Amino acid sequence: MTGMLTIAGLGPGDAALITPEVSAALTEATDVVGYAPYLVRVPSREGLRLHASDNRMELARAGEALKLAAEGRRVVLVSSGDPGVLALEAAPEWQDISIRVLPGVTAMLAAAARAGAPLGHDFCAINLSDNLKPWAVIEKRLRLAAEADFAIAIYNPRSKSRPDGFARALDILKDAGCGERTVIFAHAVTTPKERIETVSLRQARPDMADMATLVIIGNSATRRVGRWVYAPRRAS
Amino acid sequence: MTGMLTIAGLGPGDAALITPEVSAALTEATDVVGYAPYLVRVPSREGLRLHASDNRMELARAGEALKLAAEGRRVVLVSSGDPGVLALEAAPEWQDISIRVLPGVTAMLAAAARAGAPLGHDFCAINLSDNLKPWAVIEKRLRLAAEADFAIAIYNPRSKSRPDGFARALDILKDAGCGERTVIFAHAVTTPKERIETVSLRQARPDMADMATLVIIGNSATRRVGRWVYAPRRAS
Repeated sequence: MTGMLTIAGLGPGDAALITPEVSAALTEATDVVGYAPYLVRVPSREGLRLHASDNRMELARAGEALKLAAEGRRVVLVSSGDPGVLALEAAPEWQDISIRVLPGVTAMLAAAARAGAPLGHDFCAINLSDNLKPWAVIEKRLRLAAEADFAIAIYNPRSKSRPDGFARALDILKDAGCGERTVIFAHAVTTPKERIETVSLRQARPDMADMATLVIIGNSATRRVGRWVYAPRRAS
Repeated sequence: MTGMLTIAGLGPGDAALITPEVSAALTEATDVVGYAPYLVRVPSREGLRLHASDNRMELARAGEALKLAAEGRRVVLVSSGDPGVLALEAAPEWQDISIRVLPGVTAMLAAAARAGAPLGHDFCAINLSDNLKPWAVIEKRLRLAAEADFAIAIYNPRSKSRPDGFARALDILKDAGCGERTVIFAHAVTTPKERIETVSLRQARPDMADMATLVIIGNSATRRVGRWVYAPRRAS
């Protein structure tokens, strides 16, 4: 029997942002594998098996999803990145499994929409976690992103195990002349706990961010008009 | 009477990628405004007015959407960027209008999913059109993006009025030592005309791209395994 693995983006939180394509995959699934807080967002029904795991168990999670698919089950791996990559890394060992990847609305895009259109022009996305890359790489990317005048979306700005990185990132950007840039803190976007805060980079404090916060830093031309933030059409 | 303007992302083409939130906005709309090829994707129904416009008419389109909303109509401006920004730029003149922005799956994310997970780590997006910014800015951003070792998503690589920019962009990236990087040409992604081509940057030819192509250039660690392309977990 040939199994199937679907790696699917569930979106930032609100069910109204799950694409019909992903909803259909969940309806047809026999098994859903993923980080526990994601699984509570999957509609339950008789016969559907949910396989929850810890956030630090990506490798085990991807392996489990592939193993279930190899047993002939229709598996959806709900993902916001890493598990998908891991499943693809392991995929050559599982030749008989059909694999597909379905995109979702990312936290970055949802946060940008709430604020207006701060990522409407050239931008970059930088993950501030140094679990998998040296801090020096992050620092270099921040400096070059400032020099390129990209709008910057910062993922995973801060965690208990990395309390200081975001403060250093803000300092690097201030040193690079970005003190007057607009910064959006989008906390738990599209969930009941959503909170959007917009300040200048000079006013930004590290404690405005946690792991549920997506931070967007405008480019040098980004403007605030009322509650909206956008990169003007004729951006620098 | 107070009108309402919804700026909504329709996604890359396939209706299965339109979020339920955007579908609901279209169902409740009295008027939909947008670039003609987008409007054909809006389900027609009695009483719904469609206002089609040319691609170079963004300013007129945004103004029309705001004017209709000011007349008390429920207007959806279907967008992949600029019209949204323009509507927000003009918004302060239309104080009585309630405005919201709904995110969609972008062409970049859909193209990345088709290829695997090439944007799973730090990346940037660069629009190659020099209609609204000097070519020198584009060139600088490409060089800095290569130096930062970002994966790079290139929007609007090529048009009849700009036949040469993409060739220059490829040369810049080759000069920056990116010749062995993986390049994905994602043409008309999620539509019946979809075509995905993956080559090394050294093999990439300018005529592999047109305006319906999203180009993704991997970072230095990006790998190809079978038909999949992904940035490994421990990316450089």
